[in-house]
Amino acid sequence: MQEKKQVKSIPRKGDDLSEWYTQVCLRAQLVDYTPVRGCIALRPYGFALWELIQAEFDKRFKATGHHNAYFPLLIPESLLIKEAEHVEGFAPEVAWVTQGGGEELTERLAIRPTSEAIIGTMYSRWIQSHRDLPVLINQWCNVVRWEKATRPFLRTLEFLWQEGHTVHASEAEAAEEVQRMLEIYREVAEDVLAMPVIKGRKSENERFAGAVATYAIEALMPDGKALQAGTSHEFGQNFSKAYDIKFTDVDEQVKFGYTTSWGVSWRIIGGLIMTHGDDRGLVLPPAVAPYQVAIVPIMKTGDETVMPAAVQLRNTLASVVRVTLDDREQSPGWKFSEWEMRGVPLRVEIGPRDVAQNVVTVVRRDTLEKSTIPFDDVAARVPALLEEIRASLAARARKELDAHTVVATDRAAFVEALKRQDGFVLAPWCERSECELDIKAETSAVTRVIAGPADPGQVCAYCGKPAKVKAYFARSY
Amino acid sequence: MQEKKQVKSIPRKGDDLSEWYTQVCLRAQLVDYTPVRGCIALRPYGFALWELIQAEFDKRFKATGHHNAYFPLLIPESLLIKEAEHVEGFAPEVAWVTQGGGEELTERLAIRPTSEAIIGTMYSRWIQSHRDLPVLINQWCNVVRWEKATRPFLRTLEFLWQEGHTVHASEAEAAEEVQRMLEIYREVAEDVLAMPVIKGRKSENERFAGAVATYAIEALMPDGKALQAGTSHEFGQNFSKAYDIKFTDVDEQVKFGYTTSWGVSWRIIGGLIMTHGDDRGLVLPPAVAPYQVAIVPIMKTGDETVMPAAVQLRNTLASVVRVTLDDREQSPGWKFSEWEMRGVPLRVEIGPRDVAQNVVTVVRRDTLEKSTIPFDDVAARVPALLEEIRASLAARARKELDAHTVVATDRAAFVEALKRQDGFVLAPWCERSECELDIKAETSAVTRVIAGPADPGQVCAYCGKPAKVKAYFARSY
Repeated sequence: MQEKKQVKSIPRKGDDLSEWYTQVCLRAQLVDYTPVRGCIALRPYGFALWELIQAEFDKRFKATGHHNAYFPLLIPESLLIKEAEHVEGFAPEVAWVTQGGGEELTERLAIRPTSEAIIGTMYSRWIQSHRDLPVLINQWCNVVRWEKATRPFLRTLEFLWQEGHTVHASEAEAAEEVQRMLEIYREVAEDVLAMPVIKGRKSENERFAGAVATYAIEALMPDGKALQAGTSHEFGQNFSKAYDIKFTDVDEQVKFGYTTSWGVSWRIIGGLIMTHGDDRGLVLPPAVAPYQVAIVPIMKTGDETVMPAAVQLRNTLASVVRVTLDDREQSPGWKFSEWEMRGVPLRVEIGPRDVAQNVVTVVRRDTLEKSTIPFDDVAARVPALLEEIRASLAARARKELDAHTVVATDRAAFVEALKRQDGFVLAPWCERSECELDIKAETSAVTRVIAGPADPGQVCAYCGKPAKVKAYFARSY
Repeated sequence: MQEKKQVKSIPRKGDDLSEWYTQVCLRAQLVDYTPVRGCIALRPYGFALWELIQAEFDKRFKATGHHNAYFPLLIPESLLIKEAEHVEGFAPEVAWVTQGGGEELTERLAIRPTSEAIIGTMYSRWIQSHRDLPVLINQWCNVVRWEKATRPFLRTLEFLWQEGHTVHASEAEAAEEVQRMLEIYREVAEDVLAMPVIKGRKSENERFAGAVATYAIEALMPDGKALQAGTSHEFGQNFSKAYDIKFTDVDEQVKFGYTTSWGVSWRIIGGLIMTHGDDRGLVLPPAVAPYQVAIVPIMKTGDETVMPAAVQLRNTLASVVRVTLDDREQSPGWKFSEWEMRGVPLRVEIGPRDVAQNVVTVVRRDTLEKSTIPFDDVAARVPALLEEIRASLAARARKELDAHTVVATDRAAFVEALKRQDGFVLAPWCERSECELDIKAETSAVTRVIAGPADPGQVCAYCGKPAKVKAYFARSY
């Protein structure tokens, strides 16, 4: 019965991306739905993937001087409302605790939708002098936002993320920090997850509640929609004034600090599933694959050579990659399908003939190419193959992104391109919020990021007023 | 001003343990109080300590076949109430979400006080066959219990912990798992944290709500009170029946699984603070010290030899230990006090005379002993010194535990020993709940763990009825 369940095919990725996505999430055993509305369970395979992604970010945060810490889950309403724009942005999405220890509370407690309010409050106690700056703290935690429609990883009521919160003595240092972290997000997305992104500033409509400027990385999904995969915010002195984050500067003057925050969530997993997956299921970038290699022994009745060789192979590989030896009782064919569904970058098959010839058969998940490798070369060859897979996934995804990015400078081409719903449209833009809302009403697309200033004399591709910037437009998740 | 704050003395540990403890938690910058009732912020130094403790547990969980996963924070009331004893035990401590997305919810959602209910619900979906067993999953997460009195680490509304949840085909395998994890808890407490514990089964009064049997490790604090530092529970089929966790066995019969859970929280940090700390502040066991070595350069005006030597020392040590070079502008004396307060196991001082003689001065935090080491021997000598510190802390704490554990076999000695409130009293006991409640009423002490069966013919030290077991009694945190 288990065998049947696994073999049942999933929709083709090109036929029904949405159903394909859901099926891959479930069948690869990354997640499961739960009886808690909008909340998923991250199963061991999904959590292992998340742990590896976390580790890639975390080591880069630490290398740039950041420290992890932990702040309370529950935020009293009176703290949350101190920054007016911030609370206005988040209030509709808040889950409220109103009862505790058998009693009605006198003040509602928000489950953190993000932690600027509580962290700002603590920073006002911890920072007195310029010597205390910069404060560079990150928190890995769960947050809750009361979303209506939900999808595994992409949008869930509760999600896991990291939120960095920093305080600086000057606006310039804060601006530098925001770019530094955005660049780390780009680096992990592109170099580790092999998922190309565009990077830039958000429009006024799209920026974080309470921010002076929001920057983001955005990936392009196969249905032509953008996926925001990481954001980095400059707050100016908005939050330091709201939460009283002051310091005595070198010149003995008491000043408000400049704060930033930046976050990446498990949403990025949704991005890599859609970017790399295929009709057989998940395709994982090697750097974050819980198993980089799955060894499938092909046993014939009476043969006693295969298992010892497979065990030796596993032991050899274990020192260079994350490897599993699949010694379950199911058939090799069933195992092939399962490890393909679960996206393991390399499958190594070993049967009696391979043992006799002192070779193994290696199958790449990304191309499904088979090759034969001498047994003694495996430990040297496998890491190189994993690197080839990473490079190949990155190149393929980059090609897709480029192929689905068009430039439009006049209204007809701009509207037509957006209505095709086929990716990014890069266009000169006036930067007016009203113009963006008009574009959205007509095409369902908005700006994703602002790439830079417009060329001299350019006019807005949509409204014809003078263009200030070049912006990427697309529909989005 | 900062200098003044740091130098201000804390109460002596022997004079006022409670105030000493609070001051050490704050002054060592492990935690801070927050405006959220009963909730603390874990500051970077405290979080780094927690991360190192987590890593010690986590690698042992993984080595014994467990995988991490993540389940929802919010648990619908209808799920929580399925196991009657369980909900009765936890209901008074639950924080309830009653509003979300601007609306009153039709069903209250509990913030998890522990996750048996939601994990059991998911397991009933994931387990069909004996081939799916055992399921060995662990979760690192936050939980909320609505406590009245709170203390940093020891008792807080929200705390960080891990909870392992496993399912087995037989009672014997479940029992084995419970002991295996308890032994891992003992090993980390004693061998890594240098904190000796007693280990055993809990009495009926003291066991987890819904468990068939609870086992625990308990450490002894300097005020003679026991601190429960880890628990491991056998649930029999209670939870599998409540949450419908069934499997088809080899014999084709459908059976209920046997479940377990086991947990350790950041409370164990409270234990190690009280166990090892002294009048100068925190004393950290080397294995989990965020910095194992602090280098304090002693600069004289005009000297240009010390800083380069200190940097070289830092670079040399960085490959073998976690080291920080304190190049701040404060005086060496201020830095000595600060690193003592923060419990760094070894301080390395280097001044112009040291540089001239090609030596450094090393000060052990545990004994405050100074020694001089040739510069070139530092990388070899420091790890050995750290191991000496671990062994010495463990031996000292073991001696304390032994010195404060007495055996009592008759009522007068038993009651007198418990009223002295000076540690563990090991005594033959009848194992009756009524007897334990009487003992509590008279002495404030209860059983901490049951060590084993009574000797033949022994009677209960308190009530004189036939003794079934030998139990450790003490007051507790």
